[in-house]
Amino acid sequence: MKNKAITPRDEDFAKWYSDVVRAAHLADYSNVKGFMVIEPNGYAIWEMMQSILDAEFKRLGHQNVYMPVLIPESLLNKEAELIEGFAPEGAWVTRAGGKELEERMMFRPTSETLFSDYYASHLQSYRDLPLLYNQWANVIRWEKETKPFLRTREFLWQEGHTLHETEEEARKETLQMLDVYKKFFEEVLAIPVLTGRKTEKEKFAGAEETYTVESLMYNGFSLQSGTSHFFGQKFAKAYDIKFVNRENKLDYPWQTSWGVTTRMIGAVIMVHGDDNGLVLPPRLAPRQVVVVPIGKDEEVNAKANEVLAALKAAGIRAFADFSEKSPGFKFAEHEVNGIPVRIEIGKRDLDQGLITLARRDTREKINVPAGSDIVTEVNALMEQIQKNMFEVAKKRNAEKTYECTTLSEIEKIMSNNPGYVRACWCGDPACELKMKEIRGTKSRCIDETYKVKAGDKCVVCGKPAKYKVVWGVQY
Amino acid sequence: MKNKAITPRDEDFAKWYSDVVRAAHLADYSNVKGFMVIEPNGYAIWEMMQSILDAEFKRLGHQNVYMPVLIPESLLNKEAELIEGFAPEGAWVTRAGGKELEERMMFRPTSETLFSDYYASHLQSYRDLPLLYNQWANVIRWEKETKPFLRTREFLWQEGHTLHETEEEARKETLQMLDVYKKFFEEVLAIPVLTGRKTEKEKFAGAEETYTVESLMYNGFSLQSGTSHFFGQKFAKAYDIKFVNRENKLDYPWQTSWGVTTRMIGAVIMVHGDDNGLVLPPRLAPRQVVVVPIGKDEEVNAKANEVLAALKAAGIRAFADFSEKSPGFKFAEHEVNGIPVRIEIGKRDLDQGLITLARRDTREKINVPAGSDIVTEVNALMEQIQKNMFEVAKKRNAEKTYECTTLSEIEKIMSNNPGYVRACWCGDPACELKMKEIRGTKSRCIDETYKVKAGDKCVVCGKPAKYKVVWGVQY
Repeated sequence: MKNKAITPRDEDFAKWYSDVVRAAHLADYSNVKGFMVIEPNGYAIWEMMQSILDAEFKRLGHQNVYMPVLIPESLLNKEAELIEGFAPEGAWVTRAGGKELEERMMFRPTSETLFSDYYASHLQSYRDLPLLYNQWANVIRWEKETKPFLRTREFLWQEGHTLHETEEEARKETLQMLDVYKKFFEEVLAIPVLTGRKTEKEKFAGAEETYTVESLMYNGFSLQSGTSHFFGQKFAKAYDIKFVNRENKLDYPWQTSWGVTTRMIGAVIMVHGDDNGLVLPPRLAPRQVVVVPIGKDEEVNAKANEVLAALKAAGIRAFADFSEKSPGFKFAEHEVNGIPVRIEIGKRDLDQGLITLARRDTREKINVPAGSDIVTEVNALMEQIQKNMFEVAKKRNAEKTYECTTLSEIEKIMSNNPGYVRACWCGDPACELKMKEIRGTKSRCIDETYKVKAGDKCVVCGKPAKYKVVWGVQY
Repeated sequence: MKNKAITPRDEDFAKWYSDVVRAAHLADYSNVKGFMVIEPNGYAIWEMMQSILDAEFKRLGHQNVYMPVLIPESLLNKEAELIEGFAPEGAWVTRAGGKELEERMMFRPTSETLFSDYYASHLQSYRDLPLLYNQWANVIRWEKETKPFLRTREFLWQEGHTLHETEEEARKETLQMLDVYKKFFEEVLAIPVLTGRKTEKEKFAGAEETYTVESLMYNGFSLQSGTSHFFGQKFAKAYDIKFVNRENKLDYPWQTSWGVTTRMIGAVIMVHGDDNGLVLPPRLAPRQVVVVPIGKDEEVNAKANEVLAALKAAGIRAFADFSEKSPGFKFAEHEVNGIPVRIEIGKRDLDQGLITLARRDTREKINVPAGSDIVTEVNALMEQIQKNMFEVAKKRNAEKTYECTTLSEIEKIMSNNPGYVRACWCGDPACELKMKEIRGTKSRCIDETYKVKAGDKCVVCGKPAKYKVVWGVQY
């Protein structure tokens, strides 16, 4: 049975994506151009992401704070690279409280400026360090082309901002948070990721180094899915953040920032979704199990209630669908919504002492004895689903990863069946620009584990290579 | 011992408030005029408020969503009263993406417009009703005079927006959510509140009826602390929200909205705080218990760790302070921060088989046997503190509540020792304006339990009364 509201994934991936976003009630376009409404099913996923990441941030000693949403232009202008990077996408408040503002203010596109300004007036001594702050907030970047979750003018995110006594500590924090993201993607979202350092051209405006979490969508396109930045002392110098160090001298602290956004919801959809809609990994799913009684029957309803109660008591996020709709309609609806496990309870099965578990990822049905320990069965099945979803994505990544030494090879791959292309590069941004002519292919990150050998040549210009880079068609 | 960073509460209440906000690291002014930075201790309180309220909203069937932060002017203009009410405080984005916008957009001061616009394009049938949505968001209202938490240009809040099939259901929802707020204030924040309907003059722009949660601060000033609105079909008609009803005819649904904000943090400070800083009720406190070992001693440290582990295992939000600071310094710091219970563990006490519990609200110290069940002791003490804080506030409210029949009485009370003044009113807004001349006194709400008797006269004009109103000096 195929869901008629959803264009087949292999027929038109972009349309398939929009159809799933709408059919699963994740988000909708709003009458505010370029902005989305995040609907209940989408927002519940964001809440799961927030709660899991937030607990991990706190476990590592971070604290949440909240900075103003508007940034006066003069404050932005203190760090030249940042303002240059974000000015084209800025949204400006110029009038408020019934009059023109003396100084216009930008809706935050990111909050380095505000954190730095706060640090400058609060940091005193090395005893105050490290300062490990994070905020959950909305930001605006005025994009021309928008797509729900992937690129919208407003999005939700978390931005960590930390200050450290030494360069070493700040570098450690940058990589630690990159690793937090990697683990979250792999263990919770079931998305295998590529992590590494961005090239100069692709790094964040104002950062000394940007590390990225990249994921590969079903159609072979790359999605930058999270970033962790090492700022060195650049912002400290621009915003005059100083502290008295252990030698009793004034010194500049070392800074990082790191963030992930509602874009992760887009990644989950495009990595795991299928022709029947959304597929959610069990650890992320706000609702993990739906119990569906089939037919009107007292025994069936009693069993459904018993199963539901047992699952809930065990902390499994389960619900039952006792509505009047037909079983087929219910099955399709819960499949579109990506509920990982469906438990079907029917009279005929019960008479044979059976109930049916249906897993969303493979759509297999499994009969289990009606008297079996349903919590154990469901937990085991959810672990299997979680693992299988990761393995399927990992296998796809491997199949879509190519080693190339010529531009024509890359051109052919990116045009027909794109993916990650590993190829050497001389380090010249001009060669990155040239690569971009191939369907917008960009460097995803530098493979820092690769040691360049004599004879390794830049795939673009043929000069001696400095790096091995992973290239991809960008979302 | 008195905290030198804090002005005595009875000497200068406004300065005392600012001092507590700063000393307890709740918030600070930022270099963005009229905006605050919510610091870790303040934000942690907001997170507790969010988690408790959010769980209750969800238990009652509400779902979280997220609407765009900017509202195009034409969309705002559809409901005349709302735009009139909020236009003077609006902040306008006029330029974005490198050019002037064709239509300016207001930073949301509240989101009735966006929810209504969304409902208009999504609601179809009575089967879709009720729609019970809520969002946690930032809003901007460009205030002239600002004060952290109480009145800032940006604040954080939740706004519930619901649609119902019948008037009765919508009215029930309005009062149900008012009751959710009342219970939250009384049972979690330990703040006794007054609830009731606002007068025409004081109600929300665009609402048919506004119900309010009012709380009385230590200095006798009134704080509007939460509101729940019944909109009737006003927005439905303005935004053309229609549904097919049970008679298969097109009909307008009935609407509500309700919200509380970071202002609640200000209420907690001003109801419970004292000359030593913040005092948090245990159910709200992000950190309920601090364990302070006194002196460097192995046995003391072992006992401190044992107590901490026992408390944490029981789900009590406890932490220990093993820092190098002196005990007196630690005591003062944890008192400023309002930690409800401090457990002091010292060598001399331990040798006598004792440990000390210090409660923040009364600052009493209680010795308990070192071998006693610390979880039971602490839980019992926290219940006592929670109850006592509520009782103290309730007693103060009773003492500061007056029945008046003449304006001169009211003038005297409000000038010297303000509070709630209960007095009859004819229903004429002109009399409310006249009352405002007395130190800005406004009607807090109508006492709907009071039946007006023959001979009851308006305290302002002397004409026959229509209502008994509770009046107060407004924050």
